[in-house]
Amino acid sequence: MRSPASTAELALLVEVSATPTPGNVDRERDLDGLRFEQFLAGATGARPGLDLAAEGQRTGAAFERAVDGMAGSAGTNTQFGALLLLTPLVRAAAEDDCTPEAATAVAEGTTVADAADFYRAFDHVDVRVDDPPEGMEPLDVRRGSDAVPTVEDRDLTLYDVLESSADRDGIAREWVGGFERTFHAANLLTDEPADRPLSERAARVHLQLLAEEPDSLIATKFDDETAEEVRRRAAEINPADPTAVDALDSHLVEHGLNPGTTADLLAGGLFVALQREEVDV
Amino acid sequence: MRSPASTAELALLVEVSATPTPGNVDRERDLDGLRFEQFLAGATGARPGLDLAAEGQRTGAAFERAVDGMAGSAGTNTQFGALLLLTPLVRAAAEDDCTPEAATAVAEGTTVADAADFYRAFDHVDVRVDDPPEGMEPLDVRRGSDAVPTVEDRDLTLYDVLESSADRDGIAREWVGGFERTFHAANLLTDEPADRPLSERAARVHLQLLAEEPDSLIATKFDDETAEEVRRRAAEINPADPTAVDALDSHLVEHGLNPGTTADLLAGGLFVALQREEVDV
Repeated sequence: MRSPASTAELALLVEVSATPTPGNVDRERDLDGLRFEQFLAGATGARPGLDLAAEGQRTGAAFERAVDGMAGSAGTNTQFGALLLLTPLVRAAAEDDCTPEAATAVAEGTTVADAADFYRAFDHVDVRVDDPPEGMEPLDVRRGSDAVPTVEDRDLTLYDVLESSADRDGIAREWVGGFERTFHAANLLTDEPADRPLSERAARVHLQLLAEEPDSLIATKFDDETAEEVRRRAAEINPADPTAVDALDSHLVEHGLNPGTTADLLAGGLFVALQREEVDV
Repeated sequence: MRSPASTAELALLVEVSATPTPGNVDRERDLDGLRFEQFLAGATGARPGLDLAAEGQRTGAAFERAVDGMAGSAGTNTQFGALLLLTPLVRAAAEDDCTPEAATAVAEGTTVADAADFYRAFDHVDVRVDDPPEGMEPLDVRRGSDAVPTVEDRDLTLYDVLESSADRDGIAREWVGGFERTFHAANLLTDEPADRPLSERAARVHLQLLAEEPDSLIATKFDDETAEEVRRRAAEINPADPTAVDALDSHLVEHGLNPGTTADLLAGGLFVALQREEVDV
């Protein structure tokens, strides 16, 4: 009864409502200069871009529109990574089916024009990324649309661009790796007891995802060791112990350790599980 | 930077996020069989209808589409009254300006076809309403689309239909009374300190609105005396005393006293204040 674009927006809203999500903004936690309400605004602003993805518009164009709308509405970058993950999933769900294969087909079908749109999306926001590898400086995403001529000269598709950063970016890894953790997150959500509020189930899955693999946003902002240390801390606590979860939350917030990629993966998993009607609100 | 439809959806989301809103679902309070997440889903489901209102579609048709999408996504009635209030405001903001005069012009411009759409909207949901006055049984909204032939025979516009229930329904009263309390709510929001989260400002305004006039949903579900008693209780507490506000909340929830019209008016006020850029997230 929900359209894929509506479901994607709902996934963003449930993700930010899930609490506690240690280190992240949620419905009981604002961070310095980043408020819960800005995430609500980001999700509603992204909707026209998500609608374009559902209508089969070029993946890059839909993504750029979603990011533009998000940033204009939230006044900052709230859900860039989540939108990069959701765009091919929404298109796959609208055109074909919400499966790893269909989403991968969308990813592999991207063109040089999509890559140019992707770079243009960076004009709308500040996104935390690593310095590019040697020889890749002309393709530094922080150059935004200034990098488009190089993208075109080198004939790179959006898939190619993301493939080149898959070793250090968790969302790029989804695009080129069969959306493995996204569908894994959906399975974890489906396994949670259905009589609990969806955002409560989502909070538990957030903690599981955080305990399983180092968060790539933390690795980018700090380093691999810090990301692994956060993963280890998340794995060591008892998720059913609210005091331990709160202590982890306080520790992460205090040190500016914001596991944003894990939140993006959770939003993707929520989309898949809602879209397949394996969970509901 | 936000479209009117996006702003309207954001208003719905901020309204349900405002906490505490005594007696109502909010981000820290689910009610029996009515959860916070269902309001998120209702808002995202209503978006295509809000888009139609912004595109200048017939007011009744846009409203019916919004209600259909809301009910399909939330699985229940979450925001019927708020959508009835928002539809003419969105259209006015998109076409002309977000003023009482422009919204009233939209309301007065409705036709018999809009009235028919309004009745059809009741096919999608259960809405709590009073028995109709004597002689009005064929126009009981609970008849849904079955009442359409009578609406057409009697040549009633949507404005006419709402005028006839303005004495007992707070949203109908807005339609035919210059949207007075909606714009009043927007002014109250604008007067709140801008350095606090918007949902916190909204919670304070909710309490002020509740203290000012009896809630018409409570009057419908119970009676006028009960609604006035709730108003009095709200007026007597110190809004800056969290213990008193929580006690009011518990009292209302315990007795099933759900001031839903006040929540709808707050959503309308949030739309106006956000649309006029008098407040931001």
